[in-house]
Parts: sequence; structure tokens; C-alpha cells
Amino acid sequence: MQNVYPEATLRKFTHDVFIAISCSEEHARLATDVLLKSDLRGIDSHGVARLSGYVRLWEKQRINATPNIQIVHETPTTATVDGDAGLGLVVAPFAMQVAIKKAQQYGSGWVSVRNSNHFGIAGYHALMAVEQDMIGFAMTNASPLVAPTFTNERLLGTNPMCYAFPAGKYPPLIVDMATSAAANGKLEIAQRSGKAVPEGWIQDATGQYTTNPHALKTGGALLPLGSDREHGSHKGFGLSATVDILSGVLSGANYGPWVPPFVAFMEPSANPPGQGIGHFLGAMRVDGFRPADDFKANLDNWIERFKSAKTVDDTQKVVIPGEPELEAEQDRKTHGIPLVQAVVDDLNTLADRFGLQRL
Amino acid sequence: MQNVYPEATLRKFTHDVFIAISCSEEHARLATDVLLKSDLRGIDSHGVARLSGYVRLWEKQRINATPNIQIVHETPTTATVDGDAGLGLVVAPFAMQVAIKKAQQYGSGWVSVRNSNHFGIAGYHALMAVEQDMIGFAMTNASPLVAPTFTNERLLGTNPMCYAFPAGKYPPLIVDMATSAAANGKLEIAQRSGKAVPEGWIQDATGQYTTNPHALKTGGALLPLGSDREHGSHKGFGLSATVDILSGVLSGANYGPWVPPFVAFMEPSANPPGQGIGHFLGAMRVDGFRPADDFKANLDNWIERFKSAKTVDDTQKVVIPGEPELEAEQDRKTHGIPLVQAVVDDLNTLADRFGLQRL
Repeated sequence: MQNVYPEATLRKFTHDVFIAISCSEEHARLATDVLLKSDLRGIDSHGVARLSGYVRLWEKQRINATPNIQIVHETPTTATVDGDAGLGLVVAPFAMQVAIKKAQQYGSGWVSVRNSNHFGIAGYHALMAVEQDMIGFAMTNASPLVAPTFTNERLLGTNPMCYAFPAGKYPPLIVDMATSAAANGKLEIAQRSGKAVPEGWIQDATGQYTTNPHALKTGGALLPLGSDREHGSHKGFGLSATVDILSGVLSGANYGPWVPPFVAFMEPSANPPGQGIGHFLGAMRVDGFRPADDFKANLDNWIERFKSAKTVDDTQKVVIPGEPELEAEQDRKTHGIPLVQAVVDDLNTLADRFGLQRL
Repeated sequence: MQNVYPEATLRKFTHDVFIAISCSEEHARLATDVLLKSDLRGIDSHGVARLSGYVRLWEKQRINATPNIQIVHETPTTATVDGDAGLGLVVAPFAMQVAIKKAQQYGSGWVSVRNSNHFGIAGYHALMAVEQDMIGFAMTNASPLVAPTFTNERLLGTNPMCYAFPAGKYPPLIVDMATSAAANGKLEIAQRSGKAVPEGWIQDATGQYTTNPHALKTGGALLPLGSDREHGSHKGFGLSATVDILSGVLSGANYGPWVPPFVAFMEPSANPPGQGIGHFLGAMRVDGFRPADDFKANLDNWIERFKSAKTVDDTQKVVIPGEPELEAEQDRKTHGIPLVQAVVDDLNTLADRFGLQRL
């Protein structure tokens, strides 16, 4: 059963929860905006469905609701930001603002972030740059769920990479992807429905392929993009490693198996090599390379050429990266955001706890 | 049958061929260094095996052996370089030097390149940054061979991405990968041996999976990393699109299906939207984020943790990105570079033509 809520209803609700855990008005508004952007764009796994998860981490004092986020190291175009254990939902936009300011002055800006938490969808942060006619980059490491090629250990997160480009008459082109074969959100959907997953998404506790969506609970792992060595899983591993190094090793955050878990019932490592989780954000002015209008005209041409490509099958059209999310956003802004009952129940538990009106 | 040649022999031979097509001494030396680095590192498809291909493009006046490579647009940390139709083997190192200089002064440097040609292995250029204690980025677009998800047209090249990081006691960690499921070089090996390729590497002229390695000659295409939609081919498409946009659209080079072919017998598009092929190169000072020794100590720890990971199967160890190439380099520096007979014959044809000593 699904329930559909107007954006404004979920926005007020989410904001009030962040206020209830003592976020400032500004932070509550921003964190809400990041979560709602995810729900609007159809990425249900990263929106209000995670709200109670953030609250549980706050209860365990693993999220600081009143962080002192600051730059701890910098050059004209690079910086490291310490998130002071704040919500990644506010730390990452802070860091992206730093990158954008540097790019305004010097052409590009690059910020590695330590001591943060889950930052929501990477696309939110990358799009901040696009609004300034810049190319946006956003990555984060995450709780270890993925076994690198040939291993039987969870050593990497689904470590997403996002690249976002401003177009002219078309919406921004946004590549926002987990570097695993399947995003964890897709696995969760299969778990709820009890359906088998395709071979190549996960391995079981012995390291063999399995189609059982629950295998992660019994020692299994997600697989890197490429699925197996023959199909390039070492490339998915390499991309995920890149995200981990830029986000975690470069900033002084944790990395690899030491990245703290998002779920509050799992304890972080006892002797971690860094602080919190790490992100990496970047912005480059398009007109640092050529006039922005020229770039946009060519990107429009690129998009048109790919959209008009000959397809294998008439029923499946070419999908320009970012297009499905924008379609969802337009639809949900008008028709509301559907939530599964489990999420509604979860949010109503928060409502009861904080004395807010139930959904 | 294989023949093994000392590095110095192939270096002199290659250098003399570049001189014969009227490259300057400096360019001949540099282009040779890029090709030999590929052969040394075991990437046989991108080394001297391609030398006659460059010569044929020069004969067709599609490569300018005496280019005036220059910066045509810049900010303190960004630039666009016009390669004047020169060898990518010399244009890309020029651009990376620009990026490194900017990084020395401002923390990072980013250069998009137009009007270039095939630049050899991406790793060569990224490693130039690593030698300066910087993180190196290198990408290039390439002749269209890959069909994006759901399409039945070759619209993208194998568009490689490379990220290279300096470690402490370990060699640099280098992710250098085609964004297709299989690199074209691997397909060529299968074509020579006549062996079937795994499902998921290529599609035939009707857009269906095929294991026939020759399917590209009859209207087929390589597939993006991920192979099919269910296993994330839209991610491989997204990564390849990112490379194409940063290299081609951002610089004013060609992009998508208009990228000129490497093989001289295929004519470039009649009305291309840009100039030549495009690259994108970047360098970021590690100490722009934290002291380089701290970064290297953590990266060493990262490498050690991953190397010691529990494996699925005792016979297959965890491979740290860049490690196999370094092992090949150490071996081939000592024991020589093996070439298949077809490559030796090809080089000897060049020898006869330019009056050089045969191999």
C-alpha cells in the first residue's frame, strides 16, 4: 500500500524533526531540502526514508546537531573541511560552497571533507555548482558493503560518484551512480518484495554468486560495478577505491572497512584510522575553458544526438543521465510523493516521540 | 611466435620513426617514451603496436608532426589547449605540464584539450602528476565503438579514465580503465586467437549479445561497463559520457560519434562539430589537503588492508590497481619486451620505408 503526500507536508514534517533534535533553523531547512530533493527525484532510498536513521545516530551521539564546520587546511583552490560530526546533509553543502567560491575566484575549487556523516544524494551537491554555470563533482565513501574483486570481505561502500553539467535548452546532464553493480536501495526493494536478484549483484558468505536478496544479512556482500573479473569488476573496484581515497584518505576521514556504519545498531570500529566519513566535492567554471554558451550549445547537440540514437528495441528509448530523475521531480512536485507504509509508520513513530502531528 | 626485444632497441627504433616523419627531437623522444611506457607496463595494445597507425594518420595529413601547441583560454587553474592536430603523445604531456604548473601555484590545475589525436595510455600522463606529489587525472575520448544502453549505434569510444595517487612505501595506486566492459585491446587478442568472447562484451548488428569477437566488423559494438541495464550498463554509459563531455564538449573537440577514427582507412566525419579528439587532464597537490606524508601513510595502510583481505579462492589474490602494470614494467625492463610477429612485421615495413635497420 502506498500513501502520497504533498511535498510541503513532508518538508514541514522533516524540518520539525531536525529542529526537534536541536538543529539550527538554517541547518534544519538545508538538511530537509537535501532529503526532499531525493524523494522528489524518485530516489526513495535516500530521502525521508532515512530520517529516523539520522535521528538514531544523533541519539547515539554519533551525529552532532550543532556542529562547528570549518576549513582546516587550504590553498587558493583546495581545502579540507572538518564537519565536526555534523549531518552530511549540511556539511557537504558547506564544503560545496567553499568549492564554488574558490572556483569563482580561481576557476576551480576542490574540497575534501572529514568527520562527516551520510550526505544524502550526491546529485544535490553537484547541482549546486551547476546553478552557477559550473561543472559539479560530488563523491562520498560509505559503510562497507562491497567486496572488491576476488575478496570475501566487505571493504568498500557503494561509494557514489556524481558529475553534473549545465546544458542550454535541456536540463543539466547528471551522472549520479553507485560504483557497485547495484545500489543498496535496489537490494532493499528486492528484500521487501522477497524477489530474487539478478546474478552479479551480490555474493554469499562463501564468495559465490547468489540471487538471494537477504544474503547480505548472512555474511554476503554487494559486488563492484562489472560484477565479475571477466566483465570488469576490477574497474568498479578501482572507481570505488578512487572515491574512497579522494573522500577518506585525502581528508583524514575513515576509509575502507573502517568507514562507520550508517545503521546505529552497528558500532563503529574501535580504533579507526580517521574521523567520521569522508566526501569529495568540486566545482569548475565552464567559462574557465570556453564561453559557457558555446559549451551549452555543444552539450545540447550531444544530448540531441544521443536521444535520437537508433535503438535495439522500440520500447526502450535512450536515457540521458539525469532525465528520469527530472521527470520524477516534475511529476512529484505536482502529484505528491508516494511513501511505502513502512516509511509512514517509521515517520509516525518519530512524530509521536517528538510530539509532532502524525502524517 | 613471440620475439623479445630490449627496451633500448625499441626505444631507438620508435624514436627514429618519429624523426623520419619530421617530429622534432624533443617530440620524438617524448612520443617514444609514452609508447614504450605502455609496452613496458604490459599494455601491448597501446605501445609500438600502434606506431604504424600514427604514421598512416600522418601520411593522410591528419596528424601534424610539427604542431604549435598552445593555451587558447585560461584562468589561474583551468585552461584549454589546442593541440594543432599534433600527436596526442606530445599534446597530452604539454597539457599535463600546464596543469602541474597551475597546481604548484594554486593547488590544482585542470586542462581540457582539443584538436589532438590518440594520446597512448592515460596512465603515462597521470603519473607525471604523481611524480610531483600530486594526484593525477587523465581522460580522453576516442573513436566511436561503444553502443550506449538500449542503443544500436556506436556513439562513444572506450573513453578511458585514469586516477593516480602517490603512496609512501608502495608504488603509486593507479586506476586506468576503459569505461567499456572490455577494452578494445582485449577484443583484438580474441580476434587474433579466434576465441569466443564472454557474453556482455559486445553486441551484434541487431543489438543482441554475441560471443563472436569479429562482430564489430559487421555492424556490432562494444558494450559499456556493466554490460546490460540490469548490471549497470547505464553507469558505464554515464562514465563514458562524462569523459566525452570533459574531453570533447568542454574543449571544443569532437565528441560522441564525431570523434575521428584512429584507423586511417576510415574517413573522419564531413561536418564535425569540433576539432580533432579531446583529452582532459588534471593535477591536485596532495598537500593542498593535508601534509603529503600523512596522506601517504594512510594510503599505505589502505593498500596493506586491501592486500591482506580474505579471498574467495586461494589462487586469486587481491590486485591493487596499478600493481600488475608495475610488475610487468620491472620484468620487461630486465627481460625485454615481447612482440607478436604481426607487430614485428608491421614495424619492419616501417623500417624498410624509412631506411632504418629492421628489428
